[in-house]
Amino acid sequence: MKVRVTVMLKDGVLDPQGKAIGHALQTLGFDGVQDVRVGKVIELDLHGVKAEEAHEKAGEMARNLLANLVIEDYSVEVVA
Amino acid sequence: MKVRVTVMLKDGVLDPQGKAIGHALQTLGFDGVQDVRVGKVIELDLHGVKAEEAHEKAGEMARNLLANLVIEDYSVEVVA
Repeated sequence: MKVRVTVMLKDGVLDPQGKAIGHALQTLGFDGVQDVRVGKVIELDLHGVKAEEAHEKAGEMARNLLANLVIEDYSVEVVA
Repeated sequence: MKVRVTVMLKDGVLDPQGKAIGHALQTLGFDGVQDVRVGKVIELDLHGVKAEEAHEKAGEMARNLLANLVIEDYSVEVVA
């Protein structure tokens, strides 16, 4: 079972990486870029679990390791 | 218009970050983790464009800056 965990910085937390990408895009001539936010996506291949259990397990992994809950939010999506 | 660009390593490209997360999850007692792949997600807030144009523009940004096309694949999704 493949599960995707997306980890993004919470709103209001400064995103220097996003700012840098925004400036670089402008330098390359892309206009109209109002905001850029960068996050992580972690694709987990879990063996021997059904969708619901996989979703729960990935959430637990996010809370314990994948996301820093002080500054990041996470979302879990069962892909296949 | 919000567009999400997801950048993942191509299949077959070694993912040391994914391996490290896999080992860490095992150490924390999560069994059944067969594979872990890590990628980037970039959320772009584009001003004054419709969905189709936003999708095209984000694809161009991915090809020019956001993804290293030698080792990475990207996907574009118009979010809102």
